Amino acid sequence: MIVGLVQTAPQFGDRLANQKQIENLTADLDADLWIAPELALTGYEFRNRAEAMELAEEVPAGPTCVWLQDFCRDRNCLAVLGLSERDGDKVYNAAVLMSPEGLLGRYRKIHLFDAEKLRFDPGNLPFSVFDTGKARIGLMICFDWRFPEAARTLALRGAQIIAHPSNLVMPFCQKAMVTRALENNVFCATANRIGEERRTGRIMKFTGGSQIVAPDGEVLRSCACDATVAFILDIDPRQADNKKVGPYNNVHGDRRPEFYAP
Amino acid sequence: MIVGLVQTAPQFGDRLANQKQIENLTADLDADLWIAPELALTGYEFRNRAEAMELAEEVPAGPTCVWLQDFCRDRNCLAVLGLSERDGDKVYNAAVLMSPEGLLGRYRKIHLFDAEKLRFDPGNLPFSVFDTGKARIGLMICFDWRFPEAARTLALRGAQIIAHPSNLVMPFCQKAMVTRALENNVFCATANRIGEERRTGRIMKFTGGSQIVAPDGEVLRSCACDATVAFILDIDPRQADNKKVGPYNNVHGDRRPEFYAP
Repeated sequence: MIVGLVQTAPQFGDRLANQKQIENLTADLDADLWIAPELALTGYEFRNRAEAMELAEEVPAGPTCVWLQDFCRDRNCLAVLGLSERDGDKVYNAAVLMSPEGLLGRYRKIHLFDAEKLRFDPGNLPFSVFDTGKARIGLMICFDWRFPEAARTLALRGAQIIAHPSNLVMPFCQKAMVTRALENNVFCATANRIGEERRTGRIMKFTGGSQIVAPDGEVLRSCACDATVAFILDIDPRQADNKKVGPYNNVHGDRRPEFYAP
Repeated sequence: MIVGLVQTAPQFGDRLANQKQIENLTADLDADLWIAPELALTGYEFRNRAEAMELAEEVPAGPTCVWLQDFCRDRNCLAVLGLSERDGDKVYNAAVLMSPEGLLGRYRKIHLFDAEKLRFDPGNLPFSVFDTGKARIGLMICFDWRFPEAARTLALRGAQIIAHPSNLVMPFCQKAMVTRALENNVFCATANRIGEERRTGRIMKFTGGSQIVAPDGEVLRSCACDATVAFILDIDPRQADNKKVGPYNNVHGDRRPEFYAP
């Protein structure tokens, strides 16, 4: 299975330009699954909840999902991408898993970062794994990395690949995702953005370094911190079905939940 | 509070030589808490359960605890050290927390690594945190690193410092402990050993790199991979009481257990 990551530098509020950027970066590459960053077509730093709502869309009726389905149809692929999702008077930092036939999966960020708490409602859907036929894909977003329970839950629910759209500003996540891969023997694919935003009187500098980590902790491929880029990589998702570590251990089977704090 | 780590190269089965090694390495250093490796006075690679049992001791009546209490009394300190613990017909890969007055805490390794499963009984005591007056100390051993629930449970139970006696052979743990520190805002002190053992037809090569990681993920101090060494470091355990990350986040308070798989 060919997995592609696209690392972009979105222009705030310019959906069409950001679509074009993804189209251009991925134009010459064929993948079975593309993963794009968090809030990939809107930009990150909403000034407030009203602005997040204004740039939000219904899923899957809104223009981002319509465009993403076209993208999947044109290339006969699946795609994961982050967006601001409106649902009635609620607004979520969300991600979708799209196919040529339409929406396959949806996730609403459960662990909101920093001032996102002022802009978004906290996610209200379970950590879910979607069986696409080519791989079982789990979704989490950016700051969810800091909570081991996120990746653990997805892996225990059968994820072979954790698709992880991100807008990272702290330097720890890329290394921590190696730990997330190792502790679950699962592929972790983090699609991050680059560039800066200065919309609320502070500088948000995004760290790039998009990467795919193998279940054995090897960083199979990683991007620069300062370039827009896309890459593809051939992986076998079934590697993630083997939870063994050596002849005696199993990263899931050796768990002893009776000793764990709730 | 001064925390000391001692990184040794035990001689298999020679308790007195291994005691002497720890005494010599730490002789010129004063610490409030010393942390020594897993199975620090026996060596690691027992040929079988009978050998693990033969070198095991009762806690705290056995000679290792008696020596360790003397060590604590002589230096007016606390100490954590790994040993093979016999309890009736059971034998555990255990760690103790000792004070000048006697045993303060005990832990029996919950996640056994590799052929340890043939040699030891799995731990049957809760992950526990011991309030020593100077700091609240949680105990875990070596391969417990691979299971995020171990450090998480200790941190949720109030640990400020996770004392982590180890005999590491795989290269991942030292970096993963940075993640463990970050995801819990807790100090992680890994005391590892160096050297090789060739007692069962394979080579066990231990990786050293003992380290103390701060709650913010900074590796405050780390050792070489190939030298016996001790160091001391002044830390403020109360740093670990602050679980905030920026103005809006809290690594424990932001947990949403209703969404986590059991």
